[in-house]
Amino acid sequence: MKEISRDVVIGVDLGGSAIRLGVINDQGRLFGFKSIEIPQSRKKEVVLSLITEGIRKHIQDQISIGNNVLAVGIGSPGIINPDKGLVVTSPNFPGWTNVPLKSLLEKSFNLPVFLDNDANSAAFGEKWRGAGRRVNSLVCLTMGTGIGGGIILNGEVWRGAHGMSGEIGHITVNPEGPKCNCGNYGCLESYSSATGMVRSAIGSIKKGTRTILLRLTTGEIKKIDAKLIHEAAIKGDRLSLNILKEAGMYLGIAIANLMNILNPDMIVLTGAVTGSWDFFMPAAQLEVRKRALKTIVGRTRIVKGKLRGTAGIVGAAGIAWRQSGHI
Amino acid sequence: MKEISRDVVIGVDLGGSAIRLGVINDQGRLFGFKSIEIPQSRKKEVVLSLITEGIRKHIQDQISIGNNVLAVGIGSPGIINPDKGLVVTSPNFPGWTNVPLKSLLEKSFNLPVFLDNDANSAAFGEKWRGAGRRVNSLVCLTMGTGIGGGIILNGEVWRGAHGMSGEIGHITVNPEGPKCNCGNYGCLESYSSATGMVRSAIGSIKKGTRTILLRLTTGEIKKIDAKLIHEAAIKGDRLSLNILKEAGMYLGIAIANLMNILNPDMIVLTGAVTGSWDFFMPAAQLEVRKRALKTIVGRTRIVKGKLRGTAGIVGAAGIAWRQSGHI
Repeated sequence: MKEISRDVVIGVDLGGSAIRLGVINDQGRLFGFKSIEIPQSRKKEVVLSLITEGIRKHIQDQISIGNNVLAVGIGSPGIINPDKGLVVTSPNFPGWTNVPLKSLLEKSFNLPVFLDNDANSAAFGEKWRGAGRRVNSLVCLTMGTGIGGGIILNGEVWRGAHGMSGEIGHITVNPEGPKCNCGNYGCLESYSSATGMVRSAIGSIKKGTRTILLRLTTGEIKKIDAKLIHEAAIKGDRLSLNILKEAGMYLGIAIANLMNILNPDMIVLTGAVTGSWDFFMPAAQLEVRKRALKTIVGRTRIVKGKLRGTAGIVGAAGIAWRQSGHI
Repeated sequence: MKEISRDVVIGVDLGGSAIRLGVINDQGRLFGFKSIEIPQSRKKEVVLSLITEGIRKHIQDQISIGNNVLAVGIGSPGIINPDKGLVVTSPNFPGWTNVPLKSLLEKSFNLPVFLDNDANSAAFGEKWRGAGRRVNSLVCLTMGTGIGGGIILNGEVWRGAHGMSGEIGHITVNPEGPKCNCGNYGCLESYSSATGMVRSAIGSIKKGTRTILLRLTTGEIKKIDAKLIHEAAIKGDRLSLNILKEAGMYLGIAIANLMNILNPDMIVLTGAVTGSWDFFMPAAQLEVRKRALKTIVGRTRIVKGKLRGTAGIVGAAGIAWRQSGHI
């Protein structure tokens, strides 16, 4: 008698501080979630070996319970070439240039491997199993240390002509704004990412603005992070409230632009910064109502992601499921 | 013996001052171009009757030479609902609200009629027979009185969730900029359209800026138009040169945003304002190089449209050819 074997895909979300992975079935259900810490050194060989061993362990587990691993889907930060399976460059891994992650893993496991940008993966995850299940098009913003973006049109990831679409963190929202790591001035990321908000806070403190952030860090301004700004805002700290409001204002400008350009069904916001939703969203909504075309405002829903920390894993696996022709 | 009958489509480009139409074969060749002037009153009944009679004449001509008219494609300014075939609203025709142009024309001619936004039509025209023939994705900006936009992805028009995509004239390029007709502040259209440049010129003159525009209009500043600003720039007029430079700068910001968001193969600029290409493009290119991601700059070509005044007609017909399943 033949055993009942279930098909599964391994989903991997490669982050700056951890490799997060799990097993995803064709319904997008996640099993066996695991997070593997990446050592501070972030050496290429070490990271690649951690990824490989993490996947190997999951494959072995699946085989041992009689399941059939069809493919591996992996989302990575940075500029990705999905066709060639390369991590072209990655802000989190300075030494990585044209790393052939897809072919390296395919050789290790003799399985098809699908590599994509982490924000594309999160966007597809939210479309497949999250906030965007019932819509045809969405733009997903991943708001954390930086701001990434993924665009879903007609239910599929729009990757652009060179696999570089969705760089929404680098929309210019203020031509005269501060310089961004990308070389541009006044990028969305300069205001509405965790890094951007911390930069604003430190800048204001250096100009003499009073804030309880100083007390909360006992004067060590290097310890200020987005979480602390959120906590200070809860306590009514004027500076922190203003920073979150400004983050929302520029986010609203970017969202209005996206709505006017793409007219998607939905805008999905994910990532750690969305924890401060109540502090930044009113300002964002004000800008959207002011700046998006009147015929569009109200039709486009702006929502929080539903998969939280797992959108990237589920989406990376979903892309593998889709591209291997199984869903 | 059976006569050789060629299939053709009637393409119509509805503008504020003229209805332009022609006959387009399956190769995108345009025959029998005609422009019908719209009276200043722009009364709905008059315009509709001019459209209908213009199309009728073309259909009769085609029948008389033994050709077979398959469909009519029409591009209209304003907010269009292509599925329902409605002109929802149109800046050029103030009285028009939810005009069922598609069904009105289908009843008149017993032929399938395809209605789309004029900028979508121009974008498809440039993709089908113009600058974008060899690419898969492009964004087309129609720069005239206002600024429209059409987005082609995977060779097809991306219309958005509600048929309202491509409103590129209303990207915010300067959050603190002048108020736009749409209600927003600092739209691209406020700087880089003919109307925007005229507004800038008049504003500067009222502040006392010296310019030969005053002499060229014998002091009647209402006579200033984009053509005159162009002529004054040729003569070395500092104000006109600065206005065109500013138009280019903000255009460059918008193009960089489009490149970072969509990563298209190509940006195509069409419309009367592109006549001043040499005056505004250097400033636009500077901004693009400064603001688009370094990995994208240089890969995306920014070009002038090739079909000039006929992109809208050819594209409207092309959409009809495509949607009726013939190309």
